Amino acid sequence: MAKELNIGLIGAGRIGKLHGRNINSFVSGAKVSCLAETFLNDEHRAWALENGISKTTKNPDDIFADKSIDAVFICSPTETHIEFIIKAAETGKHIFCEKPIHTNIEKINTALATVRKAGVKLQIGFVRRFDHNHKKVRDTVASGKLGRPHIVKITSRDPEGPPLSYIATSGGIFFDMTIHDFDMARYLAGSEVTEVMAYGAVNIDQDYKKYNDVDTALIMLKFANGALGVIDNSRAAHYGYDQRTEVHCDKGCVLVGNDLNDTSVISTADGVFCEKPTWFFLERYNNAFIAEVEDFIKAIINNTEPPVTGVDGLKSVEIAIAAAKSFKEGKPVIL
Amino acid sequence: MAKELNIGLIGAGRIGKLHGRNINSFVSGAKVSCLAETFLNDEHRAWALENGISKTTKNPDDIFADKSIDAVFICSPTETHIEFIIKAAETGKHIFCEKPIHTNIEKINTALATVRKAGVKLQIGFVRRFDHNHKKVRDTVASGKLGRPHIVKITSRDPEGPPLSYIATSGGIFFDMTIHDFDMARYLAGSEVTEVMAYGAVNIDQDYKKYNDVDTALIMLKFANGALGVIDNSRAAHYGYDQRTEVHCDKGCVLVGNDLNDTSVISTADGVFCEKPTWFFLERYNNAFIAEVEDFIKAIINNTEPPVTGVDGLKSVEIAIAAAKSFKEGKPVIL
Amino acid sequence: MAKELNIGLIGAGRIGKLHGRNINSFVSGAKVSCLAETFLNDEHRAWALENGISKTTKNPDDIFADKSIDAVFICSPTETHIEFIIKAAETGKHIFCEKPIHTNIEKINTALATVRKAGVKLQIGFVRRFDHNHKKVRDTVASGKLGRPHIVKITSRDPEGPPLSYIATSGGIFFDMTIHDFDMARYLAGSEVTEVMAYGAVNIDQDYKKYNDVDTALIMLKFANGALGVIDNSRAAHYGYDQRTEVHCDKGCVLVGNDLNDTSVISTADGVFCEKPTWFFLERYNNAFIAEVEDFIKAIINNTEPPVTGVDGLKSVEIAIAAAKSFKEGKPVIL
Amino acid sequence: MAKELNIGLIGAGRIGKLHGRNINSFVSGAKVSCLAETFLNDEHRAWALENGISKTTKNPDDIFADKSIDAVFICSPTETHIEFIIKAAETGKHIFCEKPIHTNIEKINTALATVRKAGVKLQIGFVRRFDHNHKKVRDTVASGKLGRPHIVKITSRDPEGPPLSYIATSGGIFFDMTIHDFDMARYLAGSEVTEVMAYGAVNIDQDYKKYNDVDTALIMLKFANGALGVIDNSRAAHYGYDQRTEVHCDKGCVLVGNDLNDTSVISTADGVFCEKPTWFFLERYNNAFIAEVEDFIKAIINNTEPPVTGVDGLKSVEIAIAAAKSFKEGKPVIL
Repeated sequence: MAKELNIGLIGAGRIGKLHGRNINSFVSGAKVSCLAETFLNDEHRAWALENGISKTTKNPDDIFADKSIDAVFICSPTETHIEFIIKAAETGKHIFCEKPIHTNIEKINTALATVRKAGVKLQIGFVRRFDHNHKKVRDTVASGKLGRPHIVKITSRDPEGPPLSYIATSGGIFFDMTIHDFDMARYLAGSEVTEVMAYGAVNIDQDYKKYNDVDTALIMLKFANGALGVIDNSRAAHYGYDQRTEVHCDKGCVLVGNDLNDTSVISTADGVFCEKPTWFFLERYNNAFIAEVEDFIKAIINNTEPPVTGVDGLKSVEIAIAAAKSFKEGKPVIL
Repeated sequence: MAKELNIGLIGAGRIGKLHGRNINSFVSGAKVSCLAETFLNDEHRAWALENGISKTTKNPDDIFADKSIDAVFICSPTETHIEFIIKAAETGKHIFCEKPIHTNIEKINTALATVRKAGVKLQIGFVRRFDHNHKKVRDTVASGKLGRPHIVKITSRDPEGPPLSYIATSGGIFFDMTIHDFDMARYLAGSEVTEVMAYGAVNIDQDYKKYNDVDTALIMLKFANGALGVIDNSRAAHYGYDQRTEVHCDKGCVLVGNDLNDTSVISTADGVFCEKPTWFFLERYNNAFIAEVEDFIKAIINNTEPPVTGVDGLKSVEIAIAAAKSFKEGKPVIL
Repeated sequence: MAKELNIGLIGAGRIGKLHGRNINSFVSGAKVSCLAETFLNDEHRAWALENGISKTTKNPDDIFADKSIDAVFICSPTETHIEFIIKAAETGKHIFCEKPIHTNIEKINTALATVRKAGVKLQIGFVRRFDHNHKKVRDTVASGKLGRPHIVKITSRDPEGPPLSYIATSGGIFFDMTIHDFDMARYLAGSEVTEVMAYGAVNIDQDYKKYNDVDTALIMLKFANGALGVIDNSRAAHYGYDQRTEVHCDKGCVLVGNDLNDTSVISTADGVFCEKPTWFFLERYNNAFIAEVEDFIKAIINNTEPPVTGVDGLKSVEIAIAAAKSFKEGKPVIL
Repeated sequence: MAKELNIGLIGAGRIGKLHGRNINSFVSGAKVSCLAETFLNDEHRAWALENGISKTTKNPDDIFADKSIDAVFICSPTETHIEFIIKAAETGKHIFCEKPIHTNIEKINTALATVRKAGVKLQIGFVRRFDHNHKKVRDTVASGKLGRPHIVKITSRDPEGPPLSYIATSGGIFFDMTIHDFDMARYLAGSEVTEVMAYGAVNIDQDYKKYNDVDTALIMLKFANGALGVIDNSRAAHYGYDQRTEVHCDKGCVLVGNDLNDTSVISTADGVFCEKPTWFFLERYNNAFIAEVEDFIKAIINNTEPPVTGVDGLKSVEIAIAAAKSFKEGKPVIL
């Protein structure tokens, strides 16, 4: 496949812009030629121009109708994902869709069926799988050299909470934040989650209670392979983005810490000062965002399975639903 | 109080010998003068001689009858603790008792009532509180400089499992191993546990199933102050004694890692090799074992509250009972 | 200055290609439009095309003659630097020149005089100043919060040696390798070097002796501000690119380690395994190469002093000459 | 050899007391029975009593005359060492002598000859060889698994300077401080020093100039095996006792850092705070002081060569003399 893949980008929010810039600046083999953004404004147009995107439109259907477009990046709000996945599949376009696919299992299944029928590729944006650190944990476990996994631990804390307006519509911590960790848990354990027990607390901002949401969570998992897992979440770590993973296996343990801003150690009579973790996901997962797109494009070019499938997207939503139920009912939920 | 405290030691197993040697070699202000060991043999006698313990007996009552003895160290099997605590209290001797006090709450309460009535000191052997690392976490949290605790995490993995014969009578992982972590959880959080949810698995040795025990466990906790907690246990880490604690609070996080055998880093084309954690509790908590005895002796000399009280001993047993119940019934247990 | 800077690139070796790609892919505000490479071949032409460089030539004079070109990047062999700097200055082009400027002090002075007279900017390619780690050391020292510097330590080891053919013409370790460290020493100490004492040894490859060169070196420095410095060099560390710096000051010490491939720690009964440092300068200084070009372009646009001046280029050569003399004569050399 | 070695201790200064307490509290197989201290006072007598030393005297000859004494610990001022070594040898007592043996090579040689003739053991108190960290470096190098050594680096900084009165008589930094590092250099390199070049500076306290001494030093070494070495010294690190060693070899590098007070990491919006190194030699080398005595006693009991010989003591003095000369004359000194 000699020619460059022609990409249509749907949505010019933070993550849409990130993918657009990455594809047109850092990724070879693909080019975003068209941006569809329902609330298109001059700022979007300027951004598109600057990033070599020649066409902009308010109507995503312009992308689906464009036969020159090979693949779409769906970076619009979650509730629009299913519609766009189905339209893309039906017009024969490969699909990169941001997480979560949706919050409704039935609709996800319908969309996945359409994708399967159309024979197009679908990749879900679980970017953390492409982080050099987490990938090392996964690769070490998957290699089998430590034996079978016993305990999977995921620390996942945001540096600062989102605006409350976001909480109002996000579906709650298990859907907007832990969803990444549920995928990571499956990825690291190499096994499906069979049971979930979730604890939550409001420790940071009492306003979370208005939305029946929490800002602090602990979730225990059972995996089909006999391993146990635990995730701890906080919406406000303050010291940076705390993203550590650890798997204890038959023969020992593999763990990764954070990337730091630098490796400095300053020692004085007052103490020893080291650097903080990188601030948030844009800094920590900068290279991972590029790598996930490169792998998506390779999967299309080489006609292979994308590294994060629609089923992966579905599974993490199922776990999130179970976690939300467990938290609400105060007891474990079996998947 | 100018004179040395006169100590009677009950039990010359591993932990009894450890305390005996520590008191007579490394601790000032106290001296073990008598050892009572039901199964007294020549090896015990030789050990006593070597460690400056002038008198040995098969009968613990010889210690209780000896008016010159100020305090006893109860290092005999768990099922004998209550009897010896009561006898010591009734004969006016201060008491250092190894953990767990017992597995029966009613009996513990009876013993504690006797101790209170007698006005003697009682300290329980939760040695980890005296470790320089965990103590730093606790002191940082207790200082309030990080604000209130949100998440307490305890990793506690033994390098290798005990003999199965031990499992047969130990009461199971929550009583023989996690009991330390339950105490640590209360110590770090500075708050009582109000709910427990325990997961367990047999990942290391299928023979554990014969004893209805597990070798891998995850336990989630709720604390009265709103914090959440999690403990992960493995009976066979293989790489050493993995004892890490972490508390995330309003303003940030404090955590401690393991002590390592040395600080070496060896870098070659094959990789970078660091040292393993110290092997097991004798190595890791060597200094802590001395410190807990010193603090017990200070509490007697200064007539102050011992640093780990009978109530601390009781609480950890209550949590262990709840954890065992949660694991058995597959649902959370409220304390 | 609204328009993009128009850049002429001289030399399409490893470093020329690196700058060409960086400018045209990752740096905004500038564009390489022409490549001059004496030994221009099809591979060079394909690389230029791929990187959006529209014009190629065998004759650097085509660049100097092109009035649309604002600045040149001199990435040709060291012995050509002086000629190209002078031509660029005389044709009014700003200059980015790779290190070392040259090995002849007189010629360097002539070139610098021409640059000064022409009023163009000249920046020397000491890329390590733009590394996040070393920059942190420098900024900490320069802030004065640790007081005045006492001891400057630089560890600088290549993962593997260059081909012997390179050694034959490089001028030796002090000119081709330590030159970077001499600049780093001045940068960190914030002071000029006043005396040099160099030890060298052939420990890796006896063939270095044929070229009167060494593969292992230790160099001590005195600085005008009273600080002492030491650099250790090896041409073959094997475990990666070992680039650590440390400054001890009145009130304490600041040091930086290497960037690692990832933050993993794998613990088993066999030991604890961590990741190696990034392999070589392309990996370690990837971002620094982009940052130095961005700063050069900013200096032109804002008409400010470039962050690494011609004098910086001169000084490091003077120290290298002194180090070579010290090594040869076996005694300290005063600058 | 069933009976306990009977030890005579000469000198009850800081180091004498340390050895006395260690032998009588923590070391088995030996017992200090007599203390000789020229300036014996009530405080010394109380200390002796407390530590189970039954006899005290102002006259060291009482020790040499006592036929029941098997070995002496010479912890008196440096200028008395030679006399006491000779007397001990002539009265057939094994000798542990603190560093430095003396500052006069001729006198040292006389003493060593007497020791050899008498056939008694002589061990010099280079305690750092018994530190778990430095020992790991040495053992790694000596094992040969990294190949031959190329570069030896020693960082050795005291937390705070001694009183100026000490400087007045200490012989200067190379004799009172770097002497330890010279021994460490030989120990790590496994080879003799053939050339020394010393730089010094007064950066901390100008009063050092009155004594022709410095508070900051860098010393380069050449070893017979082709390795190069460097030592950096500061009399006032402020952040603790900074004692790191590193050896780069054919196949890679082994290094050790400091022992820290604890392993805590406190992360907040203000930064990441780690613990400081242990404060000074009493904390850092606490276990090493015990180990060196145990090894001395073993050497006597097993009739083997002590781990640090009189020749080791001589060599480090020779290097110190060369370093002092190099610093004074501003040029390298060949040994």
